[in-house]
Amino acid sequence: MKVVALAGGVGGAKLAEGLANALPAGNLTIIVNTGDDFEHFGLHISPDLDTVCYTLAGFASPDAGWGRADETWAAMDNVGRLGGPIWFRLGDRDLGTHLERTRRLKEGQPLSDIVRDFSRLWGIQQLVLPMTDDPARTLVQTKDGDLAFQEYFVRRRCEPAVTGFKLEGGNSARPAPGVLEALARADQIVVCPSNPWVSIGPILSVPGIQSAIDPEKAVAVSPIIGGRAVRGPAAKMFAEMGFQPTAAAVARQYQRVVTHFVLDTEDSVLESEISNLGMQVLVTRTIMGGLPDRLRLAKSVLDFVGHHHP
Amino acid sequence: MKVVALAGGVGGAKLAEGLANALPAGNLTIIVNTGDDFEHFGLHISPDLDTVCYTLAGFASPDAGWGRADETWAAMDNVGRLGGPIWFRLGDRDLGTHLERTRRLKEGQPLSDIVRDFSRLWGIQQLVLPMTDDPARTLVQTKDGDLAFQEYFVRRRCEPAVTGFKLEGGNSARPAPGVLEALARADQIVVCPSNPWVSIGPILSVPGIQSAIDPEKAVAVSPIIGGRAVRGPAAKMFAEMGFQPTAAAVARQYQRVVTHFVLDTEDSVLESEISNLGMQVLVTRTIMGGLPDRLRLAKSVLDFVGHHHP
Repeated sequence: MKVVALAGGVGGAKLAEGLANALPAGNLTIIVNTGDDFEHFGLHISPDLDTVCYTLAGFASPDAGWGRADETWAAMDNVGRLGGPIWFRLGDRDLGTHLERTRRLKEGQPLSDIVRDFSRLWGIQQLVLPMTDDPARTLVQTKDGDLAFQEYFVRRRCEPAVTGFKLEGGNSARPAPGVLEALARADQIVVCPSNPWVSIGPILSVPGIQSAIDPEKAVAVSPIIGGRAVRGPAAKMFAEMGFQPTAAAVARQYQRVVTHFVLDTEDSVLESEISNLGMQVLVTRTIMGGLPDRLRLAKSVLDFVGHHHP
Repeated sequence: MKVVALAGGVGGAKLAEGLANALPAGNLTIIVNTGDDFEHFGLHISPDLDTVCYTLAGFASPDAGWGRADETWAAMDNVGRLGGPIWFRLGDRDLGTHLERTRRLKEGQPLSDIVRDFSRLWGIQQLVLPMTDDPARTLVQTKDGDLAFQEYFVRRRCEPAVTGFKLEGGNSARPAPGVLEALARADQIVVCPSNPWVSIGPILSVPGIQSAIDPEKAVAVSPIIGGRAVRGPAAKMFAEMGFQPTAAAVARQYQRVVTHFVLDTEDSVLESEISNLGMQVLVTRTIMGGLPDRLRLAKSVLDFVGHHHP
């Protein structure tokens, strides 16, 4: 069985790790948001790709949700002493990834080639693909004006009220090689519990990707539980965009993308509301701690869709 | 008394440290070669500026002659694991310098402003100036073709026989702000024991610098002792360029730049040959270990020129 997952950062990476372990090597393709990639200190940073790869490789920081475990901070300490910006913390090991990725990009190599090689060297046995090799950057439209994603997310700590989102360069972005092929042959497509506005939205905005998803085979896992995002600003964004931040609002947002929806047990009261949208609903525990949780949820999701589309 | 020193990497940095300690704060300006600056991993690297600044700040690596003491290598280890180039070793602390310098250069700030700020924050009490803020890169012409300096120096380990040198972009490079002013008001100008071809040569090739040097006030310290370079490929370069690699060859190379020359006791036999070029010659011990050696040589050099031009 071939499965494709769409993922952003931490929540997406957790379920992606569960799926990677639930499926034979080579049966999973993870399409990762690159809308919040940015240049910092002259280096190309791909936060979501790194979170997904570090998680699959087993060396993600267990606490921070970003960066690597057993990290040191000598470079950043020196940057701080020189009066430089330290709002985006780059660890020393992590810097090696940015250095080599930047070097290869400057040689003209596509990001997808670089990610494939890095993944292999890190022992990752599933395929990780950026949504696109082209520059396409999430712009958060706020009451304080348009902000680049990291500007909004890290420097402004998600404080400005959002009024909309834009994928700059999105119109001319092409899906990375392998993305449409993986979606076309997928038996199941899993929209991971990532932020619908700034993680999954950018992936779906790359021309050709959303139309390559067969909603009958697609399932989304809600990143909002009990009216709160498990992590990050998703709930705040729903509220500022005029929607009550619930799993039902997430389901409505994905109405043309998926026909299956996974709801946390805490939100079981929303089951009929989501069913009324014409979706199959699975109610299960979706909060993920370590690998056992991730694997259990991955298997539940695969069984759920497999039951309807065997 | 106002003094200007011209310096490249390790040897120059040692005498510069001696001069910095021999003179009151603010009385020394060190003009540093930037001909071997290069871009690596997207970062702007200034090897000689960093060697000089790290040495003056007291945190140069005592062994390697480049980089910082108490350095860690997490970033480079990761680059190596990813199959990237590790021939130019960037330590983790050192990376902080390159990151912040690159960030500020990309904002359009001149290198000389950045160096001035870094120096101040590192507690350096003399003025360090790049020879130019403009791109001017040393090209080593060899039997294997033209090589960028680091390509020749680090990757090829100075193996290809040199046929000449070129400062690419040199014609349109302007001396960094402060360089000509410092030379104009200098009571003494010290050409440090750096490589004449690839450290001092590029500085003198920036239009306006050589003509701002009054040879009557200028002294050079030989980087070649007993027919060998104290460090690096200077002797090999002299030989390949068709000159017997001796301190006398260095003196001839500087004949239009200085009227004073400092010779190691080991080379005292060359004293009359160099005197015959019309130069005042000081014979003294020029090999420098730690700060006491550097300070002693600095004081000898200052006294020597001061004696003739009090």
